[in-house]
Amino acid sequence: AAEAGGPQALDQEGAASYIEARPELAALLGGSKADWSVKEVGDGNINFVFIVEGPGAGPERPGALVLKQALPYVRCVGEAWPLSAERARFEAAALRAERACCPAHVPEVMLYDERAAVIVMQYLAPPHLVLRKGLVAGECYPNLASHVATFLANTLFKTSPLCLSAPEYRAKVAEYSRNSDMCALTEQVVFTDPYGEAQYNRWTSPQLDGDVAALWADTAAKTAVARLKLKFLSSAQSLLHGDLHTGSLMVTMRETWAIDPEFAFYGPIGFDVGAFLANLLLCYFASSNLPGDRSGQRTWLLETVESVWDGFCVQFLGLWSAHVQDGGASGGGSLCSPAVFGSAAPEGGRSLEECQKAVVSDLFRDSLGFAGAKMIRRIVGIAHVEDLESIEDADARAGCERRALKFGRELLVNSGSFKDARAVTEAAQKAFTG
Amino acid sequence: AAEAGGPQALDQEGAASYIEARPELAALLGGSKADWSVKEVGDGNINFVFIVEGPGAGPERPGALVLKQALPYVRCVGEAWPLSAERARFEAAALRAERACCPAHVPEVMLYDERAAVIVMQYLAPPHLVLRKGLVAGECYPNLASHVATFLANTLFKTSPLCLSAPEYRAKVAEYSRNSDMCALTEQVVFTDPYGEAQYNRWTSPQLDGDVAALWADTAAKTAVARLKLKFLSSAQSLLHGDLHTGSLMVTMRETWAIDPEFAFYGPIGFDVGAFLANLLLCYFASSNLPGDRSGQRTWLLETVESVWDGFCVQFLGLWSAHVQDGGASGGGSLCSPAVFGSAAPEGGRSLEECQKAVVSDLFRDSLGFAGAKMIRRIVGIAHVEDLESIEDADARAGCERRALKFGRELLVNSGSFKDARAVTEAAQKAFTG
Repeated sequence: AAEAGGPQALDQEGAASYIEARPELAALLGGSKADWSVKEVGDGNINFVFIVEGPGAGPERPGALVLKQALPYVRCVGEAWPLSAERARFEAAALRAERACCPAHVPEVMLYDERAAVIVMQYLAPPHLVLRKGLVAGECYPNLASHVATFLANTLFKTSPLCLSAPEYRAKVAEYSRNSDMCALTEQVVFTDPYGEAQYNRWTSPQLDGDVAALWADTAAKTAVARLKLKFLSSAQSLLHGDLHTGSLMVTMRETWAIDPEFAFYGPIGFDVGAFLANLLLCYFASSNLPGDRSGQRTWLLETVESVWDGFCVQFLGLWSAHVQDGGASGGGSLCSPAVFGSAAPEGGRSLEECQKAVVSDLFRDSLGFAGAKMIRRIVGIAHVEDLESIEDADARAGCERRALKFGRELLVNSGSFKDARAVTEAAQKAFTG
Repeated sequence: AAEAGGPQALDQEGAASYIEARPELAALLGGSKADWSVKEVGDGNINFVFIVEGPGAGPERPGALVLKQALPYVRCVGEAWPLSAERARFEAAALRAERACCPAHVPEVMLYDERAAVIVMQYLAPPHLVLRKGLVAGECYPNLASHVATFLANTLFKTSPLCLSAPEYRAKVAEYSRNSDMCALTEQVVFTDPYGEAQYNRWTSPQLDGDVAALWADTAAKTAVARLKLKFLSSAQSLLHGDLHTGSLMVTMRETWAIDPEFAFYGPIGFDVGAFLANLLLCYFASSNLPGDRSGQRTWLLETVESVWDGFCVQFLGLWSAHVQDGGASGGGSLCSPAVFGSAAPEGGRSLEECQKAVVSDLFRDSLGFAGAKMIRRIVGIAHVEDLESIEDADARAGCERRALKFGRELLVNSGSFKDARAVTEAAQKAFTG
C-alpha cells in the first residue's frame, strides 16, 4: 500500500515488466521477458532491490541489471517510519557524480525514473559480494585499502571547494541540502538516539545494560557526539557517500565498488572516512567469536585501517597540489589561489604544504571521532551489524560488543590524541586483548 | 548603462517617481511628489542609496524612506566588476529574517521589488549616524556593546541548527547558497587578494611595502587564512549578516540598527562577530592620529570589545539552554535533544554545559581569526576604512596601519592562544604602545 500519490511498489513480476517496457534496458538483458529471472535481494534496512537476469547478448551486454526502488518508508521498520522516496533522486545523482570522479569504483546508472523512484543500474555479478558478507566469512581483500582510498580521495576532493569554484560548489550544496530527510535519519540514529532513551534502541540485554546506562550518563561522550552532530549538520566540506559501511561496498579479490549513496549530501569528509574505519574495527572486535582462525584476518583488518587512511591522505593531497599548480583555482574560486599558494608565489609551496598538513590533521581527528560514533551506534542503537549479530552466544557477543563500545568511546572522546593511524591500530590491539 | 535585461538605474528624479507610483509608500511620506526632496547618500562600496523625504503625515508616518538599488556591478569599481543584482533579494530576505529574530535592532522593509532590484525601507532619521562616522568623530556609545551582543546572539542562535529543526535549517542553507556572487567577493577580497599580487590591492606606499612583502611570504598567515577561507566556504553555522563592520550599523546614543546585509549567507558565526571586533580595533589603532584627546574613547573601545563578546556568549547560551529545556529540539531535529541533554536526562544539564563550553571556545577562536583577517584586508586590500584613511599624514597613517596589521596578524595566526576577551584587549594595548 503506497502513500497516496507515491510510487507503486514493484514485485518480482512488476520489476520484469518495468524492464520489458523499456527496450533499451531489455536489450541489455537479451531474450524476452519470458526468459528472465527476477530475485529480490534487498538485505539493507531501507530499500527494495531486484536483480533481473536474462540470457545476455554478448560481452558488452552482461545479461543482468539491478533495479532498486525507494518506497516512502524505511523498509526494516515499515510504514510507521516514513521516508521521502525522493532519496532515489539523490542516490542516482550521487552515483553519477561519484562515477564522474572515480569510474573504477562506482557502478553505472542506466536509468533514473523519478515518478517510480526507480534506479536501474549495472549489476555486479558473482563472485562480487557485499564486503561485510566476505568479512564475516573470514576473507581478506588485499586491494581493498588502496581501492577505498582512491574512491575516498577522488570523490571527496573533486566535489569540495578545494577543487570546485566557489559558485559551482555552493550550487551543489544547495542541491543536496534538499536530501534533508535522509540526513535527519542519520542525525537521529547516529548522533542522538544512542545517547538516551529512544524507541528503537536495542542492545544485548541484560549483559550490556550497565554499559548503556554508563553511556547515557557519560558527559564527555555526549559532549563529543553533539560537537560531531553540529559538524555533520553544518560542515559542508564535500559530497559524501553518507553511509560508507562495509555493507555499501561490493567486492571481489580484484575489484571494489561503492554502492547505495542514498544518504549523499554535503557534509564533513571525516564522516565517510570514519564510517569505513568503524566497520573494519567492528569486524575486528567481532572476530574473536567468529568461526575459524581469524588471526590473519585481524592483522589484515588493522593493516587496512592504516593503509586506507595513509593512502587517502597521499592521494587527496596529490590531487590538491596538482590542482593548485595547474592554476585551476583562479580568482576568488576554489580554496588555494595560485597567486598565494602557487610555486611562483613567495613561500607558495611551503605555505601550501603547511595548509595541507593542518587540514589533514583536522580531517584525521574528525574521522576518528565519527568512527567512534559509528561504532557505538551499531551496538546500542537501532541498526546493528552482522559481524556482531552472527555471534549467537549472547555472553560471547556482549564481550565483543563491550570491547568495541569501549574502543568506540575512546575514539569519540579522545579523537585528538592519536598521532597517526598506527596509533589507532595499536590502541585497537590493546583494547582487543585487554 | 545597465546590463541588457538588468534593472534601469534610478537617479534622484527616478527615485521620487518610483515612490510616487506606489500609493502605500507615497502615503508614508505625506504630501505629493512636488513636496519631496531626494538625496543620494550611498557612501558604501557597492550600492546606490536614496533618501526620499516628504512633509510627513503624523507620528506613525515619519515622512521619509530609504530606497536602495543594487545595480549589476560594484559601485566603487564600476561596470568592470560585475555583481549580480540578485543580492537585493538576499538583502531583503535577510533584513526580514533578522528583524524576526531581533526587531529592536533591525529596520523594517516596506517593499522589495525583484525586477528593479530595489528595497524600500525604514529611514533612520538624524541624529542616527553611521557608527563609523561617529567613531571617527570621537564619540562613545555606552549601549553599543549590549545592543550588538543582542543582535548577534539572537540572529545567530535563532537561524542555526542549534535552534531550527534540521530540515528547516537545511532549506535555509539551500536558499542562501545562491548568494554565491556576494560570497565570492568576500572570498576574494578578504581571504585571497591581500596575501599575494592582485589587481585592486593598495596600501600606504612606500611606507608599508616591506610589511606587505613580509605578509605575502608569511607561511603561518597564509596557512591560517586558507583554513579560515575553508571555514567561510564550508561551515554553514548560521545566517550571517556577512559584512558587520562599523559602516553597517546606524546609531544614536540610545539606539543601534544593523543595516546592509546583502552579503547574507549561511556561514561561520565567528565571521560576523570577528567583523565587528576587527572594526572596533581598527578605530583603536587609528585613534593615536585622529583629532582630539582619544584616551577615553580608547578605553571605551576596548571595553566594548570585551563586553560585546561576553554579552554575546551570555545571551547565546541563554537562548540555547532555554531552547533545550523547552523541549523545542524534539526528535532528530536541532542539535541537543532533551532526551540526551534535558534536565531529566542522566547528567543532561552538565553535558549541555560542557557542550556549550566547547562550542563557545570554538566560536571565540574563530571570531579572533576572522577579526585578524578583516583587519589585515582593510590595510592591504581593496577596501580601506575611514578611521585610517582620514589620517592625512602618510607616515603617521602608516605607523597606525603597521601596528594594526601586526595585531591583526597576531589574531589571525594565534587565535587559539587567547583565553578570553580580556586577554585580547590587553594584547591590543601592548601592541598600541609597543
